[in-house]
Amino acid sequence: MLITHGTDTDNRENDMAQIVADRRDVDFVLHEQLEIERLSKTRKFSEFNRKTIDLIVSEARNLALKELLPCMREADEQGCTLENGVVRVPEAFHRVLRLFCEGEWLAMSDDQDWGGQGMPSAVALAANNYFNGANFPFMLHIILAHGAGKLVEKFGTEKQKSLFLKNMYSGKWGGSMLLTEPAAGSDVGALTTRAVKNDDGTYSITGNKIFISSGENNLVENIIHPVLARIEGAPEGTAGISLFLVPKIQVNDDGSLGEPNDVICTGIEEKMGIHGSPTCSMSLGSRGLCRGTLLGKENKGMSAMFVMMNEARLHVGMQGFSCTSASYLNALNYARERVQGKHLLSPAKDAPSVPIIQHPDVRRILLTMKVYSEGMRSLLFYIGLLEDLVRVSEDETGKKGYQALIDVLIPVAKGYVTDRAFEMCSQGVQIFGGYGFTKEYPQEQLLRNCKITQIYEGTNGIQAMDLLGRKLTMNNGEAFDMLVNTIATTVGKAEAMAPVRDLAKDLDLAMACLKKTAGFLTGNLGPDTILMAYANAHPFLDVTGDTVMSWMLLWRAVVALEKLDDVKNSRDLDFYNAQVEGARFFIKTVLPVSRARMEVIRSGDMTVAKISEAAFGGK
Amino acid sequence: MLITHGTDTDNRENDMAQIVADRRDVDFVLHEQLEIERLSKTRKFSEFNRKTIDLIVSEARNLALKELLPCMREADEQGCTLENGVVRVPEAFHRVLRLFCEGEWLAMSDDQDWGGQGMPSAVALAANNYFNGANFPFMLHIILAHGAGKLVEKFGTEKQKSLFLKNMYSGKWGGSMLLTEPAAGSDVGALTTRAVKNDDGTYSITGNKIFISSGENNLVENIIHPVLARIEGAPEGTAGISLFLVPKIQVNDDGSLGEPNDVICTGIEEKMGIHGSPTCSMSLGSRGLCRGTLLGKENKGMSAMFVMMNEARLHVGMQGFSCTSASYLNALNYARERVQGKHLLSPAKDAPSVPIIQHPDVRRILLTMKVYSEGMRSLLFYIGLLEDLVRVSEDETGKKGYQALIDVLIPVAKGYVTDRAFEMCSQGVQIFGGYGFTKEYPQEQLLRNCKITQIYEGTNGIQAMDLLGRKLTMNNGEAFDMLVNTIATTVGKAEAMAPVRDLAKDLDLAMACLKKTAGFLTGNLGPDTILMAYANAHPFLDVTGDTVMSWMLLWRAVVALEKLDDVKNSRDLDFYNAQVEGARFFIKTVLPVSRARMEVIRSGDMTVAKISEAAFGGK
Repeated sequence: MLITHGTDTDNRENDMAQIVADRRDVDFVLHEQLEIERLSKTRKFSEFNRKTIDLIVSEARNLALKELLPCMREADEQGCTLENGVVRVPEAFHRVLRLFCEGEWLAMSDDQDWGGQGMPSAVALAANNYFNGANFPFMLHIILAHGAGKLVEKFGTEKQKSLFLKNMYSGKWGGSMLLTEPAAGSDVGALTTRAVKNDDGTYSITGNKIFISSGENNLVENIIHPVLARIEGAPEGTAGISLFLVPKIQVNDDGSLGEPNDVICTGIEEKMGIHGSPTCSMSLGSRGLCRGTLLGKENKGMSAMFVMMNEARLHVGMQGFSCTSASYLNALNYARERVQGKHLLSPAKDAPSVPIIQHPDVRRILLTMKVYSEGMRSLLFYIGLLEDLVRVSEDETGKKGYQALIDVLIPVAKGYVTDRAFEMCSQGVQIFGGYGFTKEYPQEQLLRNCKITQIYEGTNGIQAMDLLGRKLTMNNGEAFDMLVNTIATTVGKAEAMAPVRDLAKDLDLAMACLKKTAGFLTGNLGPDTILMAYANAHPFLDVTGDTVMSWMLLWRAVVALEKLDDVKNSRDLDFYNAQVEGARFFIKTVLPVSRARMEVIRSGDMTVAKISEAAFGGK
Repeated sequence: MLITHGTDTDNRENDMAQIVADRRDVDFVLHEQLEIERLSKTRKFSEFNRKTIDLIVSEARNLALKELLPCMREADEQGCTLENGVVRVPEAFHRVLRLFCEGEWLAMSDDQDWGGQGMPSAVALAANNYFNGANFPFMLHIILAHGAGKLVEKFGTEKQKSLFLKNMYSGKWGGSMLLTEPAAGSDVGALTTRAVKNDDGTYSITGNKIFISSGENNLVENIIHPVLARIEGAPEGTAGISLFLVPKIQVNDDGSLGEPNDVICTGIEEKMGIHGSPTCSMSLGSRGLCRGTLLGKENKGMSAMFVMMNEARLHVGMQGFSCTSASYLNALNYARERVQGKHLLSPAKDAPSVPIIQHPDVRRILLTMKVYSEGMRSLLFYIGLLEDLVRVSEDETGKKGYQALIDVLIPVAKGYVTDRAFEMCSQGVQIFGGYGFTKEYPQEQLLRNCKITQIYEGTNGIQAMDLLGRKLTMNNGEAFDMLVNTIATTVGKAEAMAPVRDLAKDLDLAMACLKKTAGFLTGNLGPDTILMAYANAHPFLDVTGDTVMSWMLLWRAVVALEKLDDVKNSRDLDFYNAQVEGARFFIKTVLPVSRARMEVIRSGDMTVAKISEAAFGGK
């Protein structure tokens, strides 16, 4: 990792407005809330002491602000083009990719044997907060390359790994993920792409895929496509799906590039946002010449996908959250500078106009954006820490517990976070008034980009079904119980602190209500009421998310209160007090509404389940 | 009004999917809920019997579906361009405008003396539902021309009217509204454009305006700009603002076009949506040669604006609602056709995949979109009816009551409706999954266009302040009391009907809770708590809107129940039953959550009011 001039810049910028992500808050979550440095006591992460972590975050921030952010608007306007089979990405991305790869940022938390940096996931997420907030369409290229590489690392043979992996983790070659087909979206099991085994052990692959991010582009000299397909004679549904590696250009045994493969991009989507990321329709084997190799075992493609799913969904949550993080700071900085209207307490004609941050409605919006942004950061970095703990834990029970927590939190981290992120980005436009609707400011682009995070990697409706149908019931509800017990620990600490005792009580009551609601839904999965239960899947995701946010904010308040005795400067005093006030605001104004929603769920209203299709009208 | 082939098309399309607006529901609101035909008993509206109204709606629908809708995507992609001072709008708009004006649709409810059609506002709103849902960026040209014309009609001298009005209401000339300046947005009183009286009675005007929809365009041969400016020596603030008429090209006394005025377009905004509508920066008098005439009285510009405000805000509500109306029907039609995944009750591998409308989460989204769409339609058309009743009422007390209801409902019609409209359009994208994010379908454009409705004509934050600060307190709370009493009438009817008795009770309780909440806020407008009260202005708008939606839906259910005894066909049976089910869904699942929000407001949490500016972080 190239670390050149981090701290310098930090000092210079100390008095300036923060953009993209609030460094004070990033540091708070890493060091004060999660105490990430304790990982350095393990052999795996021994290099990552506080100083190193801070340097990494500073370097990521520099790169994000100096290189990724400045081309955000230009890339949105240029978009991608397809001409004669060649997809051109925004011009500036070539330079940014070079710098990104030189800094070795692509495989931050991966195995050093394959060119990864081996850093804790939580630290990598902090870097990704800056990268995604500064230019999430660019980062999609990175994420796809990394995700494809990860599949090779996890499921590849030694030969596959040695042929592909270093070039993928270094960013020299890109990656994608060929999963969706026109008639197989949410229902992956319906896919029809076919694979036929050849005498040399390779497979001939034929099919059409759509919505393939980075499926084709001129950023890299080769693209390695993981492809889901069905081997001739395999079972129907998800049980008959296998995973293949299909390079855009074949790779010879000595690692040199061979013949182009029969994989072509037949179109790119025009989209609402993420214009810098080409969304490709791909045709495999249209001339009968597409060859790939099996990755992992026959018919085990879906299990491979499942292994990758938590990481991918967490990352989509990061994208949505990072849009919010950036939108909030833009709105905050604008509200501090934009002068408009009189203060409500000095409305006289000759009174001076004031910055709009002094108007109550603006403050309400800003505080709402702030607490969601901070709560989301805590949640996502915390899941990163849990992943690190799974990796270093030597105790099997502990490891299982961490994994259970990850499993139950992932639909919240993807579904709830991106739902709220879209709302917050919308509020971030409102603060700018008419300017927010123009491309002069980044707010509208953040909103447009954010929308895709509610859709891809499983729509948020699918996330809600995952929470209700899988996560609540897995291992007799062990994961959900684990969540309940973990929250209880924070509640216990807060109960001992006078300034937040009432908040602890509120969260405790909400937890009891959430448990009851979860029990109600899992008790209604029989044929008579299952439709009603699933009609409440998304509302249940919402209320679970509200409760988890309350937990994260109360946890922050507890940590802040512990520090308040020993505060060294007024900036810290403001910061810690704000943690207590933020928790109070959320738990006193959002959580009671959420409890009413829980009660609505438990009322078991059957309208959605029972209403006739004709009743929807429209004919 | 050219009525050529309405009913034919209606019959032909009877079995086809509805698009843009559900005709059955439009008819229900006009004829069954609002009984609009009773207006034909008045002299003013005697021509508008049911047959005529139905023909008007059919013709509007034909024009919307056949001409406005087909160029929606093309216009979004072409957008507007500015070159050498000329703003070009999307090519197709020229043809559409010609047809629109030939059909005499621009001044539907205006005075026939000036070329208007004199139809009831409620009927014009039904037509506008189709026009705005099919192509709202095109309609912005129409609205601006109409609004400027209305100002001339209301405040112009006979000479101003005879010079401008017929050409404006016929669509031959366009209009705009030059209000906002870079430092005077929400705070109109801060504007600095200056007017100096000349010896000939005209005024020389100098200033810069921004965000001017249709400020310049090549659709029409002349544009008449109403301009807000301050006459030399006038008071500061809103009390010193006057209104002027500034033509793009001067009009000679004989009505012929004269010299170009000194009004130029210096730039157009690149925006998130409404690409077919140019948003112009305008420079007046940069060569010292901009001349205009006073419209109305000196220093009374703001009162003129206030007279127009209800109409303009109602129209913005219509725009947002019409996006929802279209998004809902698109989503519904898609959900009926798109096959994906197994039914929850037949999940076997060999079971057939089903249309996604059979999945509970999809049904929940669709039903939510439907009830909001229908409730919004009832509310907006109802306000149109109230406007008609104000116009024809001969009883002063009755008239005052109707006007009071309009006044208190306008912030809901603009602020609440567009807030929910944006949410519903976002849900309308979700139903399409990845396709919803692409430009292949209209969903993402509806969402992008809808966003502006939360911002212009007073941001929704401003609407919330209007409700709390003006409408709740005007005439000792008379308007709010009027609303309460009117809702009570519906509740009373519903209490007498067994199938909705429990819903009536719920709404009654919510009303009591809303009244208490309103009293709490108006009781807290003193210096100690006013910041807390205004921090709750937007939440109060939300809960008021939820209550009004519940009322509209219960009213629909009452009307439907009255008809159910006498139903002639299964389509009507489905329709009426759906009204009862829709009311139940909303009142049982949304209203209880709203009541929790009312209680949160009354808890008077002071965090937003008291938190320090430093606490927002970001420095």
